[in-house]
Amino acid sequence: MSRQIGPKLLPPPELVEALLSRDNFLIATHVNPDGDAIGSCLALSDALNSLGKKCVLLDKHPIPAQYLFLPGQDKFETFEAFNASGKKIADFDTLVMVDCNHPDRIGLSTKELIPAIEELKRALAGGMFTVVIDHHQTENGFGNIRWISPETAATGMLVYAAIKKMGVTITQAIAKNIYTAIVTDTGNFRFDNTNAEVFRVAAELIDYGVSSSETYENAFESYSGGRFRLFLGVIGTLWIDGNIAVSTVTTKMFEETSTAADDTEAFVSFPMLMKDIRIAMLIRELKDGTCKVSLRSKGAIDVARVAEQFNGGGHKNAAGCRIEAGVAEAKRMLLEKLREINI
Amino acid sequence: MSRQIGPKLLPPPELVEALLSRDNFLIATHVNPDGDAIGSCLALSDALNSLGKKCVLLDKHPIPAQYLFLPGQDKFETFEAFNASGKKIADFDTLVMVDCNHPDRIGLSTKELIPAIEELKRALAGGMFTVVIDHHQTENGFGNIRWISPETAATGMLVYAAIKKMGVTITQAIAKNIYTAIVTDTGNFRFDNTNAEVFRVAAELIDYGVSSSETYENAFESYSGGRFRLFLGVIGTLWIDGNIAVSTVTTKMFEETSTAADDTEAFVSFPMLMKDIRIAMLIRELKDGTCKVSLRSKGAIDVARVAEQFNGGGHKNAAGCRIEAGVAEAKRMLLEKLREINI
Repeated sequence: MSRQIGPKLLPPPELVEALLSRDNFLIATHVNPDGDAIGSCLALSDALNSLGKKCVLLDKHPIPAQYLFLPGQDKFETFEAFNASGKKIADFDTLVMVDCNHPDRIGLSTKELIPAIEELKRALAGGMFTVVIDHHQTENGFGNIRWISPETAATGMLVYAAIKKMGVTITQAIAKNIYTAIVTDTGNFRFDNTNAEVFRVAAELIDYGVSSSETYENAFESYSGGRFRLFLGVIGTLWIDGNIAVSTVTTKMFEETSTAADDTEAFVSFPMLMKDIRIAMLIRELKDGTCKVSLRSKGAIDVARVAEQFNGGGHKNAAGCRIEAGVAEAKRMLLEKLREINI
Repeated sequence: MSRQIGPKLLPPPELVEALLSRDNFLIATHVNPDGDAIGSCLALSDALNSLGKKCVLLDKHPIPAQYLFLPGQDKFETFEAFNASGKKIADFDTLVMVDCNHPDRIGLSTKELIPAIEELKRALAGGMFTVVIDHHQTENGFGNIRWISPETAATGMLVYAAIKKMGVTITQAIAKNIYTAIVTDTGNFRFDNTNAEVFRVAAELIDYGVSSSETYENAFESYSGGRFRLFLGVIGTLWIDGNIAVSTVTTKMFEETSTAADDTEAFVSFPMLMKDIRIAMLIRELKDGTCKVSLRSKGAIDVARVAEQFNGGGHKNAAGCRIEAGVAEAKRMLLEKLREINI
């Protein structure tokens, strides 16, 4: 084993103390979970289990197909499955929110009537002890103990630092989950959040038995035939004007390829292959006739400013919003706003 | 600056001694140079220059557009330019062959009559002192001092180790060139040659001022409009049978998009997005009506064995060959051979 070189990230002592002293954890992450959300939860759960603690992993939505290779992914339960198994929220002493920092993001704002969600809302209103570990911008001051580090590339980096501080032995399964968390949120080391610390942690994780090529293949090269056909269809819609590229996906295209929304992950970035394209947008038609929009940019161009115009948000180079209009109208509105704010 | 953690790679003492004791270097790399070839040469040249030594960088072919961002790239000369500037091979005491290990690979086997090439052939026949730094399989025992390490991901890793051993201060320009060398040959940290040492060196290079996202953008997202249209055209030719994907590019497609052979770099891998595709081939028509073939595979499938059947070669997951037949016939022959050898 190589000598330990990172991470420099220091978890708050009270966070480590809370994880070490408590016993029954609900670990929940955001709706439509990605590799950082899933990998971070699984690694934390393994670490707590190794200390003899009980963990249940909750997510509003099932794990997307490309993350089913992650060790332990079958431990995730939807809120419905949680109820069906006879468990009660009241049996847990701690909620850990991972890769998100507001209860709405774990799905508590849903209009569906799901008993576990109602129980959890009541528990939180009654002061259930909550720990937050996240790297997104803070939405509010929710949580008893909060470790929110927007300058960190992935929540997986924070969880890894916390696990090491807890004195847990890093297993291959933990390393695989953390590595996948990191490659998801750095675009396999290509986004500008990829700093030296990310590479130092990656080196350590490889030493713990992770295969970089297998992880890449699983996370990025695992398209089904339908997803690939959908991608070809989306490429066919490509529209370019100057440094802007727009592509679209309609509900009909999903139907024809037996695919769903999360199958469009990464499609938005395809036109970025071109040197001259600085802004790329993917407009996805929803069943109610409105649209979801993903925005990407290169360099200094801040597409979060565009998303904010439509009550969306995100980061400088990756943002999203929803537009109450059809695909053609949404495109017109987006292009108009781009000209207006002149980013 | 972070504490120094790598590389573990140890250059042969006689290599370091030769670089430190000699004065006039010809640094040459392989025909159709890639980022590893170019970045490694430029970094070595900067290091030798900083010690007061004279270097000339030679390559048979000009630098491809996507590597024109590399610091110092304009120092490369074609053999013709070398002659035109009035230089003589006899004025140099050392040839360093970088990222290749046989004189044929630097272009000496050409049938064109180029004075500098004739001079260099004579010089080598007369015993010109030669140093070889490479990570390809050895083709012969050529060279007075040889450091050939096929288990190393990129020649840039070897050059970096040699530069550090020479005691040279790593500049940002050296770091950018080495980083680009590494991302080229690891596919931005996704091929299975991406080990912990690769990540450790990457971390150091980031500390020296490299931007991972800028490098990615320059090296992988710098398609011209013509190259992008060519890519769309190649995607349109995609043919799939079971776990095999074949795409083709004809001379007509190059003409219609004002592109050239090196614009097809990476096209072969596109179908690998699909989980079920384990072998991908790109058949490129040459002007004489014959074909060049690029082969890629996932996991244990060894496409070098297929390439060898056509007198080509390469690595397990990336190989190439030439077939004296048209596109359709070449495809038929390749598929037949795949069935025959049953890889």
